[in-house]
Amino acid sequence: MGRTLTLIEQAENIKRASFILGNANETLRNKTINQIAVELENNLQSILTANKIDMERETKNGLPQSRLDRLMLNKERVLAICSAVRDVAKLNDPLKCFGKEIARPNGMTIKKVCVPLGCVGMIYESRPNVTVDATILCIKSGNTALLRGGEEAHETNKELVRVMKMALAKVGLPETCIELVQDTSREIATQMMKLDKHLDVLIPRGGAGLIRAVKENSTVPIIETGTGNCHVYVDEFADMKMALDILINAKVQRPSVCNSCESLLVHEKVAKEFLTMANAELVKLGVEIRGCNKTQEHIKCGTATENDFEIEYNDLILSVKVVTDIDMAIEHINKYGTRHSECIVTNNTENANKFLTTVDCACVYHNVSTRFSDGFEFGFGAEIGISTQKLHARGPFALNELTTYKWVIVGNGQTRG
Amino acid sequence: MGRTLTLIEQAENIKRASFILGNANETLRNKTINQIAVELENNLQSILTANKIDMERETKNGLPQSRLDRLMLNKERVLAICSAVRDVAKLNDPLKCFGKEIARPNGMTIKKVCVPLGCVGMIYESRPNVTVDATILCIKSGNTALLRGGEEAHETNKELVRVMKMALAKVGLPETCIELVQDTSREIATQMMKLDKHLDVLIPRGGAGLIRAVKENSTVPIIETGTGNCHVYVDEFADMKMALDILINAKVQRPSVCNSCESLLVHEKVAKEFLTMANAELVKLGVEIRGCNKTQEHIKCGTATENDFEIEYNDLILSVKVVTDIDMAIEHINKYGTRHSECIVTNNTENANKFLTTVDCACVYHNVSTRFSDGFEFGFGAEIGISTQKLHARGPFALNELTTYKWVIVGNGQTRG
Repeated sequence: MGRTLTLIEQAENIKRASFILGNANETLRNKTINQIAVELENNLQSILTANKIDMERETKNGLPQSRLDRLMLNKERVLAICSAVRDVAKLNDPLKCFGKEIARPNGMTIKKVCVPLGCVGMIYESRPNVTVDATILCIKSGNTALLRGGEEAHETNKELVRVMKMALAKVGLPETCIELVQDTSREIATQMMKLDKHLDVLIPRGGAGLIRAVKENSTVPIIETGTGNCHVYVDEFADMKMALDILINAKVQRPSVCNSCESLLVHEKVAKEFLTMANAELVKLGVEIRGCNKTQEHIKCGTATENDFEIEYNDLILSVKVVTDIDMAIEHINKYGTRHSECIVTNNTENANKFLTTVDCACVYHNVSTRFSDGFEFGFGAEIGISTQKLHARGPFALNELTTYKWVIVGNGQTRG
Repeated sequence: MGRTLTLIEQAENIKRASFILGNANETLRNKTINQIAVELENNLQSILTANKIDMERETKNGLPQSRLDRLMLNKERVLAICSAVRDVAKLNDPLKCFGKEIARPNGMTIKKVCVPLGCVGMIYESRPNVTVDATILCIKSGNTALLRGGEEAHETNKELVRVMKMALAKVGLPETCIELVQDTSREIATQMMKLDKHLDVLIPRGGAGLIRAVKENSTVPIIETGTGNCHVYVDEFADMKMALDILINAKVQRPSVCNSCESLLVHEKVAKEFLTMANAELVKLGVEIRGCNKTQEHIKCGTATENDFEIEYNDLILSVKVVTDIDMAIEHINKYGTRHSECIVTNNTENANKFLTTVDCACVYHNVSTRFSDGFEFGFGAEIGISTQKLHARGPFALNELTTYKWVIVGNGQTRG
């Protein structure tokens, strides 16, 4: 290997490579993905060795156990990654042409053709599997990728990218289809946000601080994912048992993820019954409850401040508010929600429809747990995340959303009068 | 009228109104649009009076004639606006539900439902008709609008908005569905770019400086329109007569617009023949030519610098470059183009296909003038502009692109295992 490339050199590399990968056919793209799985298996030892360096350094640095766990790779985890890689190769080609040809009165035809976005930038934090996931989804959709992973995983990421570049070379594609940014400083991340001449989209994956920084600094169009302050609203016409099942599932099954429930809203007419029932269950499951004044009339719990309604706990904590009617519930959600996933539990059709149409979010649920907001659960296969913005991608952000289109117009000399 | 509202109060107004307008049915939205046409006609005199104030002030201020012409309203122009307004009412409803229902194995159903974006911000320059166009397209697609027009047109804009608010009130919708920002300073425009809690999209319409400022400062997702450094490439296998017709049309028919041609690329094998022919014609039409060294071997013209290949003249000037092959043409376009509209003239299918697939732009033309990049010419009706970005909208940015979708999931108590 020669000297380390600068960020701009890497950006130019992936830009040049994008014109080659963007025109690679489905067979070649899937062959590349399968070759990556093979190379990752063949280089298992060197990957684990690199990961050990990261783990030892970060253990010494006192990285919290939960983050060490996300950083850690072992044979089983690498093989699971390889299996997921091969699954992506089996998915439908997102670049299959769509849209019918439009014949215009002047004889020219207009066709909407699906094409890759081009160059995808990704800024992410500790988990090294993102390095592989992002690469695979980009290659499948014909995009090159500029990856900027977290400092803690840098040795692992370097090794994963080295191995994936080998796979690219073996199938005859440029190794520069993927580039890992070598400097993990914040300054370089900020520079990356200004690469609008090179990157077609920038995807931040990480905490609220990272997403805010990207939003404020990026001149590259971004897709925001992953902030989920999700609510379950238990209507006066709810089936109490169903409401409890959904609440418990949404809160407890995996509290650290974005589609878990952070806040319970309950209609005052059923507040006493439901809160008494839910409290018993939640306490058993180790959930801390922070309620409004009216909540505290029914159960013993902490006090919910304004801040409690605003934040995403990602933990076994639940804020609770008693509402006087469904309109108050909807207003609360549209004020505090992050436009991710929201649920109403009710057997009243009118209220359900009001909620489904008026709540402004990517995924709105009637009598279903918010935990289903997920590309796999929707049947779309692997995803980059859940988009909480409205442009381009909303909800599961998967292969189709890594493409765009161009208009191809063919004629025989048409000019405009 | 009470005191002037602050920017934030106006943003809150359109946010609240968006939940009402977003749920207005097609009939009510079209009724509103037709009512706006009626009110504009009924208030013709007060609109012309307001416009006269703007015109007199700007004439005194020495605004260039071309911009005074864009600012000027007369009876004919207002009636033309009203007619365009009524045409929008006749267009198909962009909110007609799309996507089929997906039934999942666990019994829940998932439906992709088309919904308005919500609140649209628009920053634009002198032409007051944008105030009406933008409002109408937003109402048709169920969006509220925060409008920030140019200082020169402020009296006209105020009157147009006052009249349109009357129409909203008459059909029973909140007047606050549209708000005109009262302060036309740059500081307020910058504040508007930070309203990501209120605005779902921000659309700049104006010169390159405005678009750059919005790109650099906006935390609201933006849609970039209107920068068009478009090329016509005359291949070695081109029909010379057709190439000339297309070039003349693309350059001369309306040089000030974004889909006009700024740069000619010509294959060296036909350079002498084509440039001699084109030069005679272009000079007659008043076009100034700036060519590369090789161009100057064939015709007498100015010298094209690097800057000439980079800029959008929007004027009767054409830069010319002789290329050694189609790959050099494609490389040049992908380097200097603004991803708007690009054309190849050739009778060679292989070269045509190479160009159509490898040139990275919104609208790519084979033997057709670039001047057709336009919502009306594509058959889509009124448009906001031509998007040169890849996310959400590419090419004609019209009613459909003013919508997004939400996922509606209905079940009977499903929880995730």
